[in-house]
Amino acid sequence: MNIYDISEKAGVSIATVSRVINGSENVSEKTRQKVIAVMKENKYTPNAFARGLMLNTMHTIGIMCSDSSDAYLANAVYHLEKELRSNGYDSILCCTGYELENKQKYLKLLSSKRVDALILAGSSFLDLKSSNNAYIVKAAKQVPVMLMNACLNKPGIYNIVCDDCKAVEEAAEYLIEDGRERILFLYQARSYSAKEKQEGYRNALKKHHLPVDKALIRQCPKTKQLDQVEAFLEEISQEGVQFDAVLASEDFWAVGAVKYARHRGLSIPEDISIIGFNNSQLAQCCEPELTTIDNKVELLCKTTVHLLMQVLEGQEIPQSTTLQAELVKRKTTSIT
Amino acid sequence: MNIYDISEKAGVSIATVSRVINGSENVSEKTRQKVIAVMKENKYTPNAFARGLMLNTMHTIGIMCSDSSDAYLANAVYHLEKELRSNGYDSILCCTGYELENKQKYLKLLSSKRVDALILAGSSFLDLKSSNNAYIVKAAKQVPVMLMNACLNKPGIYNIVCDDCKAVEEAAEYLIEDGRERILFLYQARSYSAKEKQEGYRNALKKHHLPVDKALIRQCPKTKQLDQVEAFLEEISQEGVQFDAVLASEDFWAVGAVKYARHRGLSIPEDISIIGFNNSQLAQCCEPELTTIDNKVELLCKTTVHLLMQVLEGQEIPQSTTLQAELVKRKTTSIT
Repeated sequence: MNIYDISEKAGVSIATVSRVINGSENVSEKTRQKVIAVMKENKYTPNAFARGLMLNTMHTIGIMCSDSSDAYLANAVYHLEKELRSNGYDSILCCTGYELENKQKYLKLLSSKRVDALILAGSSFLDLKSSNNAYIVKAAKQVPVMLMNACLNKPGIYNIVCDDCKAVEEAAEYLIEDGRERILFLYQARSYSAKEKQEGYRNALKKHHLPVDKALIRQCPKTKQLDQVEAFLEEISQEGVQFDAVLASEDFWAVGAVKYARHRGLSIPEDISIIGFNNSQLAQCCEPELTTIDNKVELLCKTTVHLLMQVLEGQEIPQSTTLQAELVKRKTTSIT
Repeated sequence: MNIYDISEKAGVSIATVSRVINGSENVSEKTRQKVIAVMKENKYTPNAFARGLMLNTMHTIGIMCSDSSDAYLANAVYHLEKELRSNGYDSILCCTGYELENKQKYLKLLSSKRVDALILAGSSFLDLKSSNNAYIVKAAKQVPVMLMNACLNKPGIYNIVCDDCKAVEEAAEYLIEDGRERILFLYQARSYSAKEKQEGYRNALKKHHLPVDKALIRQCPKTKQLDQVEAFLEEISQEGVQFDAVLASEDFWAVGAVKYARHRGLSIPEDISIIGFNNSQLAQCCEPELTTIDNKVELLCKTTVHLLMQVLEGQEIPQSTTLQAELVKRKTTSIT
C-alpha cells in the first residue's frame, strides 16, 4: 500500500494525498476526511518522506562514496547508478575520501543540489565515535539516507548490510575445522564493518575454545603497493609471531599474503591457508586463486535501490536489512 | 589571457565582459567599445563557451563513463571527480554501458540537468561509424565536450588522449628486439583506442620487416572470467596458430595469458613473453608480475580538468592534447 494506491482508492490526485499528509491547508475538509478514511481503512501510515512526494522532486539521488578507485566501491557505484537509472533516477556522485571534514562538506553540497535521497556507500561513513555521525543524522531529517554496509538506528536512516560478522566467523571456522590454530586476522581502518569482521573472528575462536591472541589481530597499512603488504607480514613474522593462516578483510592483502608465502618458500595451502574478502577480480588473478568471501555487492546495491524506491513511494520498510555473504572456495585453502 | 583579465584591464565587471561577448544589448556603446578595445589590444579571442560564462552556471560537470566497474574507468572517474571538486565543481556521473542508444539517452539526460560541460571518459564513446557520433557533435554546440582517449575534430570538442598507438608500437618493438617473432595481439571491441593500438602493433612489425599475420590479431571476448580468456587462447593454439608473445590491450587478458602459459607448462618469459595494458592492480597481483603499459590515467584526468577550466574561463586551448604512456617492465618479459 503506498501513496499511489491511496490516491486511486480515494479517487483524488497524488498531489492531493500528498497535501493531506503534508498538512497543507489547500484541501477541502471533505476531501481531507475522505483521504484520511481511506488511509485508516488500509492501515496506511506514511513515512516521513512521503511528505516530500511530488513536491519539487528532482528525480536525483546523491551517492557518496569514500573512494571510487577502490574496486569494491567502484563496483557498488556502477550497480547503484544502473539500478537508479532503470528506476528513472539520475545520480550525483561524490567521492569524499576518508576525512570527516570532507564527508561533511560533500554532504552539504549534495543537499544544496536538492537530491531526493542520499546513498552512503561504504562502511567508512560511520564513525565509531557517535558525535562524528551527527551530520548524517541531521541530513536524514531532510531526505531518506540509505546506509550501505553500516548501521545507525536513527529516524530516516535505513541500513542495508551484508552480514560481515557472520561471514568472517564462518570463514574462520572453516580454517579451524581444517586444523588451523593460529589465524592472522588483517583488518582495515576503524569502521563499522571492520568492527563487525573482527567480532566474527573472535566468535569463531571462542566457539572452538581457542585463545584470542592480540598479536594475531593486525591493522594493515593503507597502501596500493603489494610489496608493502608483504613487508608488513614479514615484519610480523620477524617479531616471532607464528601463524598458519591469514584471514584478510580485503582481497588485496590476501594476495600480499600469497606473495609473502611464495617468497618464504611456504606451500599454499599445506603450510599456510589464505582467505580474502570481496571476491574481486584480484582473487581470480592471484596464483593460486584465492579463497574469498563474496559479500554480494550487486545484490546489496539492487536491494538498496529497491528499498529506496519504496521509501520514496511512502511505503514503510524495515530500518535494517541484512544479506548473507558466501565463502567462495578456491585454491588457497584445502577444499573439504 | 582570459575573461577575468579583460574585466580587470577594462575596469568593468565580468558580467559586463560576458554581455559584450554575448552581444547583449544591455551594455552602453561606450562600455562596449572599451571592452572590445581591450580584447583587441590583448589579442583575446573568446571561445564559443565564454559566451555562457556567468550566465546560469550550475557549477556542475556531467561525466559519462561507459562502465565504472572497469578498473581503468573507475580510476578515471575517481580522479576526475577529485580534480573537479578541487576546482569547485560538482559532477554528475552517468554509467552508460556500451549501447549507442543508451549513450544518446544519457547524454540527453545530462543536458537536461544543465551541466556546464561534458567529460566523456573512455574511448568507447567514439564509434568508428561517424554518423553514430552525431549526438556528441550536437551536444558540443551547447557545452564544451572533453573527449578522453578519443579524437573527434569538431567545434567545441577537445580531445585529450594517451598515445596508445605509440605505446603499443614501443611495447611490440621491445618484444621484437628480444627475439619474439610471432606476437599475438589481443584487442577489445571496435573503438578509437582499439584502432590506435592495432596500428601501433602493425607499425612495429613493418618497421622490423616482419609479416603481419591476421591469425595473430584477435578480438578478445568480453568477459570478467579469467578461465574464458584462457579457453580463448587455448582455442587459438588448437587452430595451429603459434605465438611466442602475447600483447594484450587489457591487463586482465594478459593475466589470462599467464594462466594459459602456466597450465600448458610454458616458462615465462623464456617460452612466452606477455605484456598487458593499463598498469592496474591486477598486474601486481599476477604471478609472475606483469610487464604492462602505464597509460597514465591520473595525469590524463588532471590534464582534462585543467584544460576544461581554461575553456570555461574563455581561454583558447589546443583541440587535441596527447600524453605519452610508459612501459613498466616487470617479470613477464626479459628485462634488457
